[in-house]
Amino acid sequence: MQTEGRNAVLELLKTDKTIDKIMMEQGAQGSLGRIFAEARRKDVRVQFVSRGVLDKASETGRHQGVIAMTTDFEYAEVEDIVQNKGRRGGFIVLCDSIEDVHNLGSILRVCECAGVDGVIIPKAGSASVNESVVRISAGAAEHMRVAKVSSLNRTIEQLKKEGYWVYALEAGEQSIYDADLTGNIALVIGGEDSGVHRLTKELCDGTLSLPLFGKVNSLNASIALGIACYEAVRKRENL
Amino acid sequence: MQTEGRNAVLELLKTDKTIDKIMMEQGAQGSLGRIFAEARRKDVRVQFVSRGVLDKASETGRHQGVIAMTTDFEYAEVEDIVQNKGRRGGFIVLCDSIEDVHNLGSILRVCECAGVDGVIIPKAGSASVNESVVRISAGAAEHMRVAKVSSLNRTIEQLKKEGYWVYALEAGEQSIYDADLTGNIALVIGGEDSGVHRLTKELCDGTLSLPLFGKVNSLNASIALGIACYEAVRKRENL
Repeated sequence: MQTEGRNAVLELLKTDKTIDKIMMEQGAQGSLGRIFAEARRKDVRVQFVSRGVLDKASETGRHQGVIAMTTDFEYAEVEDIVQNKGRRGGFIVLCDSIEDVHNLGSILRVCECAGVDGVIIPKAGSASVNESVVRISAGAAEHMRVAKVSSLNRTIEQLKKEGYWVYALEAGEQSIYDADLTGNIALVIGGEDSGVHRLTKELCDGTLSLPLFGKVNSLNASIALGIACYEAVRKRENL
Repeated sequence: MQTEGRNAVLELLKTDKTIDKIMMEQGAQGSLGRIFAEARRKDVRVQFVSRGVLDKASETGRHQGVIAMTTDFEYAEVEDIVQNKGRRGGFIVLCDSIEDVHNLGSILRVCECAGVDGVIIPKAGSASVNESVVRISAGAAEHMRVAKVSSLNRTIEQLKKEGYWVYALEAGEQSIYDADLTGNIALVIGGEDSGVHRLTKELCDGTLSLPLFGKVNSLNASIALGIACYEAVRKRENL
């Protein structure tokens, strides 16, 4: 879907809708500067193009130098995910600052394969489920409940009240192989560089780590999550 | 490293060295056609550029319309890998037609973390350990023995003679959770689309699969391998 014209794009930027990118006319003046600033603030990619490119892309013929591309992906609510537990209990994944679309796409794919009930991402500082993510997920995003929340920390507190055991996946106290992963569980995976935020980690019931035998000593986020999800599957399904 | 000039590049193409790409002058004639054909035959990427780009990239000032970029990565021999077994026995990964540099880089990274002795890739139809792969592997490629072989099938026969149990990772007879993965083992992972070749699969001692609970029903190659390697780690280390 696309939104054209200066006011329409400015309004769009005030909503929670997922904007893939904004195409803006190179060298244009006026309110486009405000749109650019707002887009930067919300981490939306801005691509500067010639007027000809906009003319071609325009569906209305009245783009006023700016077109925003949005995704139709329909997010779920945390409640939907909690209410749709699998037969072995609740199984949720929370993504703390996964900014890379490749990682988010891979995470959605492995979650779908492992039978995770839903994935929760924060509104700020996270990749959104845009077209790239859907493609990288090999379509898994279409079958997965994804909720976008204002505060991952508040969601963790909510899940704990609902009876979930929430674990951060990070180098830490306990090996994932020693953890009981049956019942209602939620796994929190952190971003490539930052890992799980300190405050978020402190809210969790524990930290689970994978043994590392090499010199590099860090796994890619989606691979670490995949290994953890399947260790949970093994325990939950008695495999 | 780069090799410049028509004869030098033609000679380079006759060796087993890893060529990242060849930059060639657009519209040039003569022996460049032969270089292009040879590069195509060997699956080397050719990028057509202007003379100006070549002039800028040239270190010798005598590029004659062609510059090849090569990688310094030093491959190991299969024998090196077999002779350097870990304390729990041999643990090898074979990549059957992993053409995507992202997948190969991720595979090297997870193998290094899981303590795999070495990775074996075929000379044809596989991504090579070029600069992108090293970067994507987060440097793990530098610490991992990687052997390049003419025939993956012959290597599998050789490994079986050396006492390895060789398993293809594919939807198949046995769940990975039912397999004994201790001792000398080799895991064969196939490419994103094609999977493990039929003949290669038939040479293996068995096929191991991961349970899938979703609708997409296929895991990314590097994630599937990561899960399998860590299931092997769990069994080998008694975790």
